[in-house]
Amino acid sequence: MEFTLGQVAAILNGKVVGDENQKVSRLDKIQEGKRGGISFLSNEKYTSFIYETEATAVIVSNNFTPIKEVKTNLIRVEDAYTGFTQLLEAYAMMMKNSMVGIEEPSYIDASSQIGEQAYRGAFSYIGKNCKIGEAVKIYSHAHIGNRVQIGNNVIIHTGAKICADTVIGNNCEIHPGAVIGSDGFGFAPQPDGTYKTIPQIGNVILEDNVSVGANSTIDCATMGSTIIKKGAKIDNMVQIAHNVIIGENTVIASQTGISGSTEIGKNCVIAGKAGIVGHIKIADNTTIGANTGISKSILKSGTTLFGYIAMDMKKFLKSYTIFKKLDSIEDRIRELEKKQ
Amino acid sequence: MEFTLGQVAAILNGKVVGDENQKVSRLDKIQEGKRGGISFLSNEKYTSFIYETEATAVIVSNNFTPIKEVKTNLIRVEDAYTGFTQLLEAYAMMMKNSMVGIEEPSYIDASSQIGEQAYRGAFSYIGKNCKIGEAVKIYSHAHIGNRVQIGNNVIIHTGAKICADTVIGNNCEIHPGAVIGSDGFGFAPQPDGTYKTIPQIGNVILEDNVSVGANSTIDCATMGSTIIKKGAKIDNMVQIAHNVIIGENTVIASQTGISGSTEIGKNCVIAGKAGIVGHIKIADNTTIGANTGISKSILKSGTTLFGYIAMDMKKFLKSYTIFKKLDSIEDRIRELEKKQ
Amino acid sequence: MEFTLGQVAAILNGKVVGDENQKVSRLDKIQEGKRGGISFLSNEKYTSFIYETEATAVIVSNNFTPIKEVKTNLIRVEDAYTGFTQLLEAYAMMMKNSMVGIEEPSYIDASSQIGEQAYRGAFSYIGKNCKIGEAVKIYSHAHIGNRVQIGNNVIIHTGAKICADTVIGNNCEIHPGAVIGSDGFGFAPQPDGTYKTIPQIGNVILEDNVSVGANSTIDCATMGSTIIKKGAKIDNMVQIAHNVIIGENTVIASQTGISGSTEIGKNCVIAGKAGIVGHIKIADNTTIGANTGISKSILKSGTTLFGYIAMDMKKFLKSYTIFKKLDSIEDRIRELEKKQ
Repeated sequence: MEFTLGQVAAILNGKVVGDENQKVSRLDKIQEGKRGGISFLSNEKYTSFIYETEATAVIVSNNFTPIKEVKTNLIRVEDAYTGFTQLLEAYAMMMKNSMVGIEEPSYIDASSQIGEQAYRGAFSYIGKNCKIGEAVKIYSHAHIGNRVQIGNNVIIHTGAKICADTVIGNNCEIHPGAVIGSDGFGFAPQPDGTYKTIPQIGNVILEDNVSVGANSTIDCATMGSTIIKKGAKIDNMVQIAHNVIIGENTVIASQTGISGSTEIGKNCVIAGKAGIVGHIKIADNTTIGANTGISKSILKSGTTLFGYIAMDMKKFLKSYTIFKKLDSIEDRIRELEKKQ
Repeated sequence: MEFTLGQVAAILNGKVVGDENQKVSRLDKIQEGKRGGISFLSNEKYTSFIYETEATAVIVSNNFTPIKEVKTNLIRVEDAYTGFTQLLEAYAMMMKNSMVGIEEPSYIDASSQIGEQAYRGAFSYIGKNCKIGEAVKIYSHAHIGNRVQIGNNVIIHTGAKICADTVIGNNCEIHPGAVIGSDGFGFAPQPDGTYKTIPQIGNVILEDNVSVGANSTIDCATMGSTIIKKGAKIDNMVQIAHNVIIGENTVIASQTGISGSTEIGKNCVIAGKAGIVGHIKIADNTTIGANTGISKSILKSGTTLFGYIAMDMKKFLKSYTIFKKLDSIEDRIRELEKKQ
Repeated sequence: MEFTLGQVAAILNGKVVGDENQKVSRLDKIQEGKRGGISFLSNEKYTSFIYETEATAVIVSNNFTPIKEVKTNLIRVEDAYTGFTQLLEAYAMMMKNSMVGIEEPSYIDASSQIGEQAYRGAFSYIGKNCKIGEAVKIYSHAHIGNRVQIGNNVIIHTGAKICADTVIGNNCEIHPGAVIGSDGFGFAPQPDGTYKTIPQIGNVILEDNVSVGANSTIDCATMGSTIIKKGAKIDNMVQIAHNVIIGENTVIASQTGISGSTEIGKNCVIAGKAGIVGHIKIADNTTIGANTGISKSILKSGTTLFGYIAMDMKKFLKSYTIFKKLDSIEDRIRELEKKQ
């Protein structure tokens, strides 16, 4: 898809300095700009690149004053970063999310409903008694199980699996290969050492504006619901066990795992590879560092934790500094013992 | 699906105290009971909820004696927990596992056989020369590769991938997105720094009653078989490398990884995010804590290990307690040094 | 597929000692040899097995001299290991990678091209404007998004997802369930505590000879490209975030995670479950131990790192040895304090 600089300026409510008939088809970083691409200059750190970039055009703020000759075309807007973001969104919308219509073969049970402006990719599957809203995009190989409810403007990417009875709000995005509503890991030990499966009959509820990353897994509740509250953002390969509750606007980075029945507050930030045991509560606004193990409830809002078994982050780092030189610590003790 | 309390009592061989014509369609926790749901009271801790629950009915044991007025209907049975479990299983069976028949389009090569009472979801795939038993459910987008053998009463959930030559016993359940029999990670370093792929021609064998969680991966053996013995239960996103053997009734929680050729004994319990190196043996009845790193064989049955590099769990926790105050330990040494 | 020993010897340019009309259909380890299988003897450690193996034949090097009676048939070749490897490759090629042709239903948009000798499994999906080379195998349920480019001799296994705009070189192998080109995890915090999605409009480039393991995820760049350079080998369930660059011939084991914009050098070896923060550089030839946390750039080529927060591996192990006995360390300090 190509646009003239004139068209781009019109979209951004800006002004071309240069040739408004030149065409761009790509968004580039300014330091990697190439012919046919458009970049932006917002951070002063990158100013030097504007004098040498090969990009066809650069979006700059009205207050930008070049200190030497600029060879590229400029598009002047009120704020370059905001302008570029607008362009980015328009571009992403066109390139990535413009699919509409039904590709065949796709499968939808006669008992299910889906709203207007839907996209259903080839080999997408919708089971029995589903209620799906408007402008929902269901990519190829996505699976929507029986009795699933989905709101409006939801994207279910390729190969995502929305298991039976899941409820999804508006504006959610489920990335490729994610599994929502798989059975919780519940087995009752028997006297002979074997395990008996405990039926998992609950479901998963994703409230509005939730994002779930590629190949993440969110298990259904044993009874009741595993709940991801509105605005929570979950990265790739995150494991969320049965009956967990994730608070509003909490962000969880890749490869983190949260065990059963734990309740995480709102506006928390959990870095990658963290591990959180089951049946505890994490207060609102908690920050959990990468690869941190949380073994008990965090009661105080706003703390920052880190470590193999989580501690106050600064204290952990202090201890770790000494851990690194533990051999010399032992030497000093040995020295003291000798001198007695 | 709705049932009258009279019908429920008949299933459970119990007796209704209240209105046996009222209907229920859901199982709820007693503390979350709502009209139309049925709960149970088994743990005394929850007794107070029976006097205020909005559940339409509560299953109680015959020996339950209310100490004040109960407004909900009761179903009296010999043991409330057992009764509820029966109901749970019946419910799960009806809601989750009642699919039978063939949805089209689905794919099965003419050379493959599948037994009676099968479910084959739309877009499920069965390759060449497969032998599949009775009452096997293969959900949408499940892939069964060439020459796979599957026993009776097996559930292959949506998007699970059973690669070529895998052998699966009876009563196994493979959850959504799991990959069984992908190639092992084997590469031979070449003099020029590149790597050459070592062909992986073995397979995976899952014995009876094995469960594999969502998005877990079990690689085939380089030669011979990767074996998951009967009754082993594997959670979501567990990685099992080529030629690993997992013993009977061993339970492995989410995000654990086991490297190539390691052999794990029977009745072990491995918590989440554990990491086990290759080519070692873990004795029967070993308990491995969350996020524990196992770098050498465990020879003694019945030990409990924990830690970044595994140690006896109690010893690790003792050391970690001191780790937490290492700065004060260094202060004390400094103090001693000054006083000499 | 069965071969006579005479046929095998012809393939290997070797000589049968025994009955060249006997047939084999399987490759076995010598210690697990059974009738109908062929094994090899290369490592002297296994010599004793040749006198008792039940394998129909064993490949040996010309310089092998039995010290007692050998009951099995022998195939003598110049070098037994090389001979066996040849056989292994031929076998793997026949059994695993011999699929050719189109199974229906499969989906390819009319605007896309695919070369000769292709395999397209049932329910495989190819979107708009894709360019796909010769001898590419696309298994069932694989998804190729819009505008994807793929070279020659590439295998896309079942259920792998190659998202829009990805570029894949020659001789790559993408294992089942892997996701290439999912959106990066980018969200801009808003004043009200919510997050706004940052469009991810870049792509992923896999150069030649790259392998990506089952259920791994590689996110597209926010802008520009996430790049996996030629010959890199990535195991199962590895997470690679947006804008990461992985150098040539670098090997990354299972469950490792690499955060956004980090650049890893060439010929590195990264063991399982390592975690690497974003926006750093790792020098060429770096070795990173299992479960190691890397929090800052590694500048010096050829170092070996290990630990919860990475250190020189030997130093970490020394410190950990003392960590294990920290309680006795504290006892010794207490003793010293008493004696003052």
